[in-house]
Amino acid sequence: MISEKRLAARIDALSKITTKDEPGINRLAFTDADWAGRDYLISLMREANLTISIDAFGNVIGRREGRDKSLPAVMFGSHGDSVPQGGNYDGIVGILSAIEVMQSLDEDGIVTDAPLECALFMCEESSRFGAATLGSRAMCGELRADDTRRLTDKAGTTLYDVLKARGLRPDDLMWCRYEDTHGGMLPRAFFEVHIEQGKVLESAGETIGVVTGIAAPTRMKLHIHGSADHSGATPMDLRHDGLCCAAEIILALEKAAGTYTSAAGHPPVVGTIGVCNVKPNAMNVIPGEVTLGVDIRSIDTDAKARVTDELLSEVSYIARKRSIKIDIEKISNEQPVAIRKTIVDFLAGLCASTGVSFRRMMSGAGHDAMHWAAIVPTGMLFIPCKDGVSHCVDEHAEISDIVTVAKLLYAAVTKTASADAPKF
Amino acid sequence: MISEKRLAARIDALSKITTKDEPGINRLAFTDADWAGRDYLISLMREANLTISIDAFGNVIGRREGRDKSLPAVMFGSHGDSVPQGGNYDGIVGILSAIEVMQSLDEDGIVTDAPLECALFMCEESSRFGAATLGSRAMCGELRADDTRRLTDKAGTTLYDVLKARGLRPDDLMWCRYEDTHGGMLPRAFFEVHIEQGKVLESAGETIGVVTGIAAPTRMKLHIHGSADHSGATPMDLRHDGLCCAAEIILALEKAAGTYTSAAGHPPVVGTIGVCNVKPNAMNVIPGEVTLGVDIRSIDTDAKARVTDELLSEVSYIARKRSIKIDIEKISNEQPVAIRKTIVDFLAGLCASTGVSFRRMMSGAGHDAMHWAAIVPTGMLFIPCKDGVSHCVDEHAEISDIVTVAKLLYAAVTKTASADAPKF
Repeated sequence: MISEKRLAARIDALSKITTKDEPGINRLAFTDADWAGRDYLISLMREANLTISIDAFGNVIGRREGRDKSLPAVMFGSHGDSVPQGGNYDGIVGILSAIEVMQSLDEDGIVTDAPLECALFMCEESSRFGAATLGSRAMCGELRADDTRRLTDKAGTTLYDVLKARGLRPDDLMWCRYEDTHGGMLPRAFFEVHIEQGKVLESAGETIGVVTGIAAPTRMKLHIHGSADHSGATPMDLRHDGLCCAAEIILALEKAAGTYTSAAGHPPVVGTIGVCNVKPNAMNVIPGEVTLGVDIRSIDTDAKARVTDELLSEVSYIARKRSIKIDIEKISNEQPVAIRKTIVDFLAGLCASTGVSFRRMMSGAGHDAMHWAAIVPTGMLFIPCKDGVSHCVDEHAEISDIVTVAKLLYAAVTKTASADAPKF
Repeated sequence: MISEKRLAARIDALSKITTKDEPGINRLAFTDADWAGRDYLISLMREANLTISIDAFGNVIGRREGRDKSLPAVMFGSHGDSVPQGGNYDGIVGILSAIEVMQSLDEDGIVTDAPLECALFMCEESSRFGAATLGSRAMCGELRADDTRRLTDKAGTTLYDVLKARGLRPDDLMWCRYEDTHGGMLPRAFFEVHIEQGKVLESAGETIGVVTGIAAPTRMKLHIHGSADHSGATPMDLRHDGLCCAAEIILALEKAAGTYTSAAGHPPVVGTIGVCNVKPNAMNVIPGEVTLGVDIRSIDTDAKARVTDELLSEVSYIARKRSIKIDIEKISNEQPVAIRKTIVDFLAGLCASTGVSFRRMMSGAGHDAMHWAAIVPTGMLFIPCKDGVSHCVDEHAEISDIVTVAKLLYAAVTKTASADAPKF
């Protein structure tokens, strides 16, 4: 039985494991605090009678054997690291729910047909090394020793050296993928539960989000070369104001993305200009150089491409109209990850059959699950977080929602691990 | 006779007097370089046989007696200090033209009825003490010892101590105003020539700007309190994007000021948002807190007030529409300085009678002349500067234009100093 009391106590205990003297949760990947959190989570896996294995990157798998050891395992889990001054729910809800499912199964004496594996992924946050979900990448064969030599933290230390210092084996990364350590077998399925990190569920008053896809960003920088003239001495019709030019672009993206909403019957697209740097940024000088950072996301590649095209065509029109040169620096154009309809329907069915209010929704943020979704049937469940805020000290999720999602995870993994499991 | 060769040589000589090892002209007020520049200018005044007097603030007056010593003097001049990495024309064109007029009169053996005074004003630029035209303020009785104790440079040194270190008398400021040192008389008139620091003359292909008024800024900061949510996880219709809100305000000001142009038959107004600070300014976070710095100028108080009102009503509408709180921090609301029509017509007549192309225009930037305009008949002439740029190393004015304006100044001051001078 999923225990609310135990889950709440463990969430509280984990919140105490953080770098001292800084607000919020501070467990940057592979720091002492992160390592202490990992030790605590391993101790909980042991308490649930799981068999612990650790791979070359430090990812932890707690395994519970099934009746048939030859079957591929059903895996579920999340991460335990945090951003600087982060919250106590991002990742934590997922890994503690997964352990709670294992503990409950142990107490309930339930044995599944296929083995179950509870996974703790290392270094999900990009805060330390500028790249996210590194543990899952490593397990999926997408991270090499060379990459770990290239990635450095603010102090200039390479991920390679950091792994070595923790007694891990960066040189062996390509020989320690999940299949390599599981006799060539991939998991039967992977499940992850997570806080939404947005406001959709809260606004709709729903408890569970069944993720239909994980959006991937198209990113670029726009370098606007306006003319930095005297604010008093330059009449309005002789200006090439970089910030007015930027303002038109900002509103053009808002409009372009705004037409692609679920309400309008489109696959939703979100477009954000989160970065705006102005030079010389002085009261008495018309802005000259303005740089905008653009982030466009969708789970639908075509819709994302259409919004991007609309933006670029507006940028070109605005540049011509204002006689201002704009350089476009392309940064990335990642592919969205689709979640199979069969697994979405399976999870939606579990919600419906237990009377839990839910909605199908995309994930705008990236997660460990996206790497697994590319190679095995993968499902993801969201719970609301207060005011949609995450990656900060105000991050909060209700324990009642955490219990609900843990119960759904329990149902999902036991059904998937049974001999008559649904075909995904 | 105004000598092009001498003027060019003196402009060149003054350009050599600057802090070494920095690009452009560096004569920050009261620094060694500024003081050396002042010494050089005093030496030129002596060469023109002027009688030098120095007031409590260090302002220099080179006087040439008229036939009637009891008449109020006709004063003209400008400043010799610079911004950091500034140009060689801002201020310099004015003070060297003034000295050239005096030198020519001496060579030509011309004696006017009223005395003539060539004024070098100290500390016109705000770069060192954060306040502009301090020398003129002091001469006009607008600067007290207390003010000099309050004003500090980046190193924390007070203007009071800086003045003391130069052997000046900050404690005597209120007893050393122009009238106090001239037997209770103010000048009959004041004239200043200056580079435009804008693009109006260059764009119009005209040589001289006859200034009709000096604009004064209304300044405020707008603090936009948006919601810093996840860029991927927050649908477009659940956002309170501080930067999109800012973009609408930026374009609203551009539009409001843009309707007040000379072409549209209005007194021109310029509106600039030169400062835009975004938090957290990250690719993957919707902008939350955005601060905008607003600067609205006109020589017409009513027109400026109307544009300001239009902006504030748009700000209130946009805030309501987007459900975003916006705080308005008022910084200043200065009064524009009008130039008497009689003196504008007088200077325009001089241009017309000598076949010099000219236009009546406002000054968007502040100048020493604005303090004199409040108390005595004041005229100001602009010449073009290349690409409208000023306060930088690329600042440039053509020597032919400098000679033209020096000749106009010669004509203006001799006519004004004659017994049958026009009534302003």
